[in-house]
Amino acid sequence: MTGNTDAATPARTAAEASSPAVAYRRGNGRIDRPPYDLDAVLDVAVATFNERGYEATSISALAERLGTSKSALYYHVSGKEELLRRALDRALDELEAVLEAAVVLEGDAAQRLESVLRGAVRVLVAELPYVTLLLRLRGNTDLERDAIRRRRDFDHRVSELVEAAHDEGSLRADLDAGTTSRLLFGMINSIVEWYRPGGPMDASALADATVSVALDGLRAR
Amino acid sequence: MTGNTDAATPARTAAEASSPAVAYRRGNGRIDRPPYDLDAVLDVAVATFNERGYEATSISALAERLGTSKSALYYHVSGKEELLRRALDRALDELEAVLEAAVVLEGDAAQRLESVLRGAVRVLVAELPYVTLLLRLRGNTDLERDAIRRRRDFDHRVSELVEAAHDEGSLRADLDAGTTSRLLFGMINSIVEWYRPGGPMDASALADATVSVALDGLRAR
Repeated sequence: MTGNTDAATPARTAAEASSPAVAYRRGNGRIDRPPYDLDAVLDVAVATFNERGYEATSISALAERLGTSKSALYYHVSGKEELLRRALDRALDELEAVLEAAVVLEGDAAQRLESVLRGAVRVLVAELPYVTLLLRLRGNTDLERDAIRRRRDFDHRVSELVEAAHDEGSLRADLDAGTTSRLLFGMINSIVEWYRPGGPMDASALADATVSVALDGLRAR
Repeated sequence: MTGNTDAATPARTAAEASSPAVAYRRGNGRIDRPPYDLDAVLDVAVATFNERGYEATSISALAERLGTSKSALYYHVSGKEELLRRALDRALDELEAVLEAAVVLEGDAAQRLESVLRGAVRVLVAELPYVTLLLRLRGNTDLERDAIRRRRDFDHRVSELVEAAHDEGSLRADLDAGTTSRLLFGMINSIVEWYRPGGPMDASALADATVSVALDGLRAR
């Protein structure tokens, strides 16, 4: 799931690279599928956006990093903005799915909250570069602002779970639910900044530790 | 402490603006002090870096936002990089001072840790845009990498406090100290993303809430 710059680069001559129509349009007029699928292109785009910033990344730079041509990229997407939109949708769709699955669970609000926290950690780890991109958005364009709005809706619905747990007495009553929610998100979202898969702690152990730090400090006792 | 774009803009003619030497060098050869002090310039620079990104911000854009000329800015600083360095130093110096004050305190490691957490929240609130800039660094230049190194040193010393508290039995033994530290930083650093001074919760109440969420989940009981 990390940006895979080691993806097999097709052997192409300089002439082919500088004339992509040759590479993708055969003598019979049929257009071949370029040597990358959209997921691979997205992985590289997201890794590059995270490293250099979205604004500073051009389609040309992405093509170069993929060892391909701009035309080959335009086979997949209409441009840089579509790459960003698809990347943000992927992160947001998965986070929203966690919430949808949790709200229909049996049990009290604290249990549903625990399920959301675990699920959010799982998505963060599985989609680390995608969630990183989402969390670093500055809201410079309508597209970015829409994604930030969806992320805020998600946060708002988790805050409602915190409030419900608060009201039913399963979380400490002396802490403000809004502040508590934000501190919780801060803790969970920070995972994208320091966690790297493949280390001694897997996603499940990380989720356990996070939920334990978060909820054991919040549960009424 | 927030970027003050409403600072009094000096009335200057277009001719003066395009020829700053006229504005600052009088007939007697004396160079006048420009109408901004360095702190005001820094506040605006930091606010602009945070909004648009450091790379995307030019000295010209800063001068325009300050309603002054590039030459007037060069009176204060050698360039954009010096502004960044001064801004990062300010955030780091204050965070490091919190740690220096805490390590000489009487009491156990958990008490020293609590003092660091409270102090860090206080600095975050007092220097919100400066700490925001620090936390968003990507490490693109030597300057940025040096600042990130100082921030990591700070984090490392706080982790040592967590470990000492762990060893003395004042924090829960079932959680890994390294992971605990990172989750703690995540929670505290997130404050720059959502807290805005002037709301219902002041810095002191925020520090209380943060320390309470953090430590009550960690303390052995």
